[in-house]
Order: sequence, then C-alpha cells, then structure tokens
Amino acid sequence: MGSFILSSIIVGFCALIYTVRAMNNGLALTPTMGWLHWERFTCNTDCDADPQNCISEKLYMEMADMMVKDGWKDVGYEYVCIDDCWPSVTRDSQGRLQADPKRFPSGIKKLADYIHSKGLKLGIYADVGTQTCAGYPGSFGYYETDAATFAEWGVDLLKFDGCYMPQWTLLAEGYVNMSLALNKTGRSILYSCEWPLYEWQHQQPNYTAIQQTCNHWRNYADVFDSWSSVTGILDWTAFHQDLLVPVAGPGGWNDPDMLVIGNFGLSWDQQVTQMSLWAIMAAPLLMSNDLRDIDPRSRALLQNPHLIAINQDPLGKQGYRVAKVNGFEVWERPLSGGKLAVAVVNRQELGGPRRFPLLLATLINWKSCCPQCNITQVTPQYQELVSPEKCKPLSRMQAKKWLHYLSKEEAPDTVPTMWVKKLLYQNQKREQVSL
Amino acid sequence: MGSFILSSIIVGFCALIYTVRAMNNGLALTPTMGWLHWERFTCNTDCDADPQNCISEKLYMEMADMMVKDGWKDVGYEYVCIDDCWPSVTRDSQGRLQADPKRFPSGIKKLADYIHSKGLKLGIYADVGTQTCAGYPGSFGYYETDAATFAEWGVDLLKFDGCYMPQWTLLAEGYVNMSLALNKTGRSILYSCEWPLYEWQHQQPNYTAIQQTCNHWRNYADVFDSWSSVTGILDWTAFHQDLLVPVAGPGGWNDPDMLVIGNFGLSWDQQVTQMSLWAIMAAPLLMSNDLRDIDPRSRALLQNPHLIAINQDPLGKQGYRVAKVNGFEVWERPLSGGKLAVAVVNRQELGGPRRFPLLLATLINWKSCCPQCNITQVTPQYQELVSPEKCKPLSRMQAKKWLHYLSKEEAPDTVPTMWVKKLLYQNQKREQVSL
Repeated sequence: MGSFILSSIIVGFCALIYTVRAMNNGLALTPTMGWLHWERFTCNTDCDADPQNCISEKLYMEMADMMVKDGWKDVGYEYVCIDDCWPSVTRDSQGRLQADPKRFPSGIKKLADYIHSKGLKLGIYADVGTQTCAGYPGSFGYYETDAATFAEWGVDLLKFDGCYMPQWTLLAEGYVNMSLALNKTGRSILYSCEWPLYEWQHQQPNYTAIQQTCNHWRNYADVFDSWSSVTGILDWTAFHQDLLVPVAGPGGWNDPDMLVIGNFGLSWDQQVTQMSLWAIMAAPLLMSNDLRDIDPRSRALLQNPHLIAINQDPLGKQGYRVAKVNGFEVWERPLSGGKLAVAVVNRQELGGPRRFPLLLATLINWKSCCPQCNITQVTPQYQELVSPEKCKPLSRMQAKKWLHYLSKEEAPDTVPTMWVKKLLYQNQKREQVSL
Repeated sequence: MGSFILSSIIVGFCALIYTVRAMNNGLALTPTMGWLHWERFTCNTDCDADPQNCISEKLYMEMADMMVKDGWKDVGYEYVCIDDCWPSVTRDSQGRLQADPKRFPSGIKKLADYIHSKGLKLGIYADVGTQTCAGYPGSFGYYETDAATFAEWGVDLLKFDGCYMPQWTLLAEGYVNMSLALNKTGRSILYSCEWPLYEWQHQQPNYTAIQQTCNHWRNYADVFDSWSSVTGILDWTAFHQDLLVPVAGPGGWNDPDMLVIGNFGLSWDQQVTQMSLWAIMAAPLLMSNDLRDIDPRSRALLQNPHLIAINQDPLGKQGYRVAKVNGFEVWERPLSGGKLAVAVVNRQELGGPRRFPLLLATLINWKSCCPQCNITQVTPQYQELVSPEKCKPLSRMQAKKWLHYLSKEEAPDTVPTMWVKKLLYQNQKREQVSL
C-alpha cells in the first residue's frame, strides 16, 4: 500500500448544500435503523405449516430478542417493523384496523409494550389506498382512525404503501392527510412513505412536498435478494441524483429499500457493496433477514461501526456518484468536520480484482491535500493512512491525464493504486490537519 | 426429515437413449475436468504491472502446482488450460504460431513438459478464423500447421474459438478440417469447439456433425461471474434440451462454459447450484478461478465427491429440466445402475426457504418405489435415507393432485417435504434393492 493524495477540502460541494426543510416531527435526524420483515418473510401467513417464519407476533418478539442479545441495539438498530399481511381481513365494528387474531393473539398494543420493554421501537404498515398491496384493508377514508389506532397501540413508525389508490392524483393529498393525522395524535410516529414510487408511474414527483411530509420515502422498485436488484437501485439512484440528493437531510431521507445482507442471493463482496453504498446514500438501514440465523460475517458487516458512522453522519448530506469509467464507479459523501467518504466500486462481472488509481477518486474537485490529509480505509480492511505532503493543486491537464490512465487500466509507477477486488473500497478522508 | 417416496425405475427414460456416435478419439469418455484461465484472468497481458495474474507460463505452472498440492488432481481435475492471449502477435518465419516470448520465455513445449511432470495435461487455445477473439493470429489457412505445432509441443487439449471466420458458412468445414488435422498428428488431443455458438447466430447447428467432430462444444454465451449469467445459461439449456440432451454422451458433451465458483459474484447457494446443475448437465468441469487463493468452502464444493460422481457417471446421459412450477425447477439425470439424480432449485429471489413436496420431484414417470428405494441427499448436507415401502404406483390423478399442492405451496401432512433454502437440494436414488 502506498500513500495517497486526496482532495483537501470539500468547498466544491457547496453547490449541493441546500437548506433542507424536512418533516418537522423531530424524528429521523439521521437515517432510520432497524429491521423490516418484507423481503425475507413476505406475506407468509401459514403459521400452521410454518410457525417459525409466518407473520405473527412471535416473529417480531423473537427479532426484538435477537436485536438486544446480539448487539444490534447497541450499534443503533432500533425499529422492529411489521410490513404487509399483519391485519385481519376486516375492520372491527368501530371501523378500526385489527391484527389477525390467530397470528397476533395478544394484539399490537401488547406487542408494542414488549418491544418497548426491550428499549426498541415498533413499526407498522398500512396503505394510502383502499387495500394494501397484499389485499388487506387499506386506510383510504380512515386516515384519522388508523393514525389514532396506531398511536393508541404505541406504534413508533408507519410504513405507508401506495397500492389501490382510487386515482393516482389523490396520492399527494392522501400522504399529506395521513401525515397530518399522525401529527394530530400527539405521538411521535416516524412516517415512511412510498409516495414518489407510485407517483413516478405518472409524473415526476414534487420532492419538496414529499420531503416536508415524510421522514423517508421509497423512490424505486422493491429490493429483491439479488445483485441485479441492488445494482438496479444504485443505477436508478445515480441517474436521478440531481433530483434526489438535494432533498435529503436530517428529518427526511431517500429510501432505496431494505438491506438484504445475510440472506441467500448476494456474494460476500456484493453484501459489502450494499452496506457501503447504503452508507454513502444516507439510506435508512432497514435489514430484512433472519436475525435468529445469520452468518457471523454478515452480522459483523451490518454492525460495522465505521460504515454505520458514515451512514449516521450528523451533517446528513446524501452521497452521489461522481464518476463512472471503465467499469469502475466512484461515489462520495461529504461528512461533518470536513471529512469525505469515498467508495470505489468495480462493476465488471468478468475477471479478477483490478487496480484503481486512488488519486482519481479525489480528483473530482481538482484539488489535493495541503499539507496532508489523514485517510482511513474502511473496507475491506480497516486501516489508517496518511497522505504525503502535496501542496500543489493538480491542474486540469494533470487530472485529465489520470483519467486517461484509468481508462487504459494503467498508471505510471508514481501513482498509488489499490486493488479493487470485486467490488469495493471505501475511504474516509479526515479533517485536514492544518491549513 | 420424513421419508420419501420415489419413482422406482428409470424405464421411462428409454426414449431419450440414443446410440451416441461421438468423436472417435477415445477421449472425454466422461466430461473433461480441469482449469481454464479465461473468466478469471481474461486477456491480462501486463506482466510488468501485474506479474501474479498476467497470462504467462508462471500462471499455468502455479495452477498446476496447486492442482497437485490441494487435492484437485486427486479428485479428477486434470487439464490446465490456456485460453486466448497466449501467442505472439505474429507467426514465426515458418508460419507457425509462437508463444509471446516475454510472457512464455521457456515456450509451450517446456510448459507442457512441466505440466506433464505433475501428472496433468495441458490445454491450449486457437481460433478457426483469421484472428482469435482478442486479435491474435487465427488458424484459418493454418489448420494442419497449427495442429502439428500443438502436437509437437505435447498439447493435450485444444479449445478452438470461432471469431473472425471470413464466412460463417465455412464454420463447419473449418471445425471438421481442424479435427482431421488433429487426428492426423497421431497425438491424442481433446477437441473443444465453439462451433454451435457461432452457428446459432445464423441457423440451427447440425448437432450430429458437431458431435462426430468435437469432444465438447459451447452452445451459448460466455459465462460471467454473476448469477444472472449462470441462470441465463441454465434457462437457455433447458429451453433447447430436446435438441441438446440426445447428442451428449461418452466422447462428446454440451459445454455450458466454465465454473465460476470461488470468485466474487456468486453467493454460497448460487455456487452450490452451479456445481450441482453442471453435474446434472454432464458438463465439462472447467474451473476459472484462482486456485492460489480460494475460499475453503468453495474448494470443498468443487471437490465434492458425490457431485463429481454424478458429473462423471459412466452412463454419460445428460440431465434435463423436468418441471418448472411456482418458482421451483426440478432437474434430473439418469445414472448408471438404475440410479437417478434429482435437483430441486428454488428460483425465487424474494423471501426465505420454501418447502417442496419431495414426492413431486419423482412423479415425472408416475411411478413409485416398490418395495423401496435408497435415497441419498447430496446437498446441502449429505445423508442416507430409505423410502418406506410403497408398491402402489401413483395414478395420473394422484400426480395431478401433487402438482396442485405444489402450485399452491401447500401439501397435506402426509406429504414429506424438504426445505429448499435459496436454491438447491440434490437427491440420488440408488438402485432398487429388490424387485
């Protein structure tokens, strides 16, 4: 490993710094962390045949137990979230939602009490339209009733889906009205929306309104347990980043959907990439996996304190893709204290590890460390590095030369390179030691 | 785990048993096993910058060393195969191919001697057209010269690519002529063709001719280090299995391309699936990975004696997909001694493990074990099982009922089920104990 020259300050990012006016409920000042049942457990309601994995109060209680027992809570995972398929197929005689009596014999309130007794929070799921996506009762026409019910039960987060809206033009009104209904309860309920996902099917969403209404919002398709799904989400997000990045900040976040780390469809390097890029994107970290049966390596990745620190950085700026060249992608995220997180992703699906001139990852603003920077490599191995003194800023011509080297997959001996195995390194520039 | 009822005999497969007249050079009586550089090392010729991974004699010598040292040779992996990018860009003064002098300073003959001294065999690569796919000299117009050169060097296998053929209508003639040229050398050289892959772009290949000319033949796109690539190959093969399965047999095999197990793009369950389905498909087992640096679990999978035994079964019948329903696929392969290998693949990329009524995997011929069968579960854990006595064959109506259960993802309590995690179980029915 050589030493690296990095851009020294992040003044160049000022253009991206908006004054974010996010939903004003005091929640989600950093991205939400927790567990959500959907990707791994879907709509499995057959508790006779599959008692261990069906959607039942037992499932959430066991996940809460594991979150405490295995250190998840200690590193920041807090919300245990129910997704679709929890309710009874009919409302009660007062028109209130009720949990399926067979699968939730104690009821949601008792479940919330249990979750709270563990020092955790409970999330629930409902739908802005007439039915949930899986066909259970929707909240259309019942926003205040349902918000009151959730508050009464002690629910701490609502994931509000967008299926079966009578007219798509009612989406905005529906999401805003549920937000008002939640506020009216007086209980702090984190509000997770799917508003833009459903509005994109018809028009570009009004992200200013969304950001003032929701604590996070799903923009794109559901994540699956596959690399093509994860890369699809990354590609879509990068393509729309000029629209998405400015609206993210404390109180309101773009939600690229669940972490599927610890399941069956991602290789190890692909898991590392999802975790790292979700950190760069300031994404809610909502795992969907089985905490009762998870590979220790995947657990350590999900609990990696350095990646979590990047994700939870208090500046609250979402990262973005700064370069895509020769099968490499470079992403970066400005952090508090003048730090910068950089991720280099090798997107080629042929061949072995490839060398990447590290300098380039930091050339976007055509600056260099002066007199030097501290650099921390986060993945695949944590290590502290210090750049050499380098006070002469690179000229645009020099920078172009590096781009040329990269595109040829070659670099002169004087350029420090790093091996990018399959997928990722992440580097964090520390605050400049002195000016 | 309950006990299972399996179909008892494989008479039902007789319709698929053709008299195979494969290439008559006495080679590849079972699918070729070895290592091939392409997917992992591609056309990396920069030995200054990357001496460990560039295409050089050192690479093949090190792989040969590892094949002996780490037990690969002991379980049957035998061929160390060079792919594209080995030659000098020009032929020598006598018009012969020559290895790049910088990267192969000792020459191919010395390399072959080294490989042979390890008890292994050497494969090389050339092209039926005017250039190789990477632009090195092709063999068009030099078939006899090149065959003689390879024989003189002591080469044991030729992978013959199909780029840059002046007219595609010359493909058949070119591949046949090289076959004749190889035979003329008097040396046993296993002949690996890409003839059908290139002919498919214009017309359905004549597989009878191909099978009489080549020891194995590539039909479909190159494999990449990704699950979408592996499933693409499986889907294509299943779609064309009525054409492909009958022409495979001792001496001539369909080649779905390299095993990418031990690299960066497949999850563990996906790796198990590639290995198992390559065994079912009677595919050449040509690994493309770095034997100097491979995960012990991947190594154990590639060396799994039960999967290798299925792959190398002396009957030499290629397996095929027998059912595709509800996100499950069932594949089976008739084995010698009346045995049957069955693979069940969970192709869903959402949710956790799903139950599969095992009975169904064996219903294809509407028979049952009588009086009983021995059953061996191969993956994910090896275990021996014995079915209960079950002498009454299932009626077609009963069989339909099972299909119905499967499509509803439910089965009555009397049906033994197995959990199919992400991807695969493989079961082998032993010869019926008695009639």
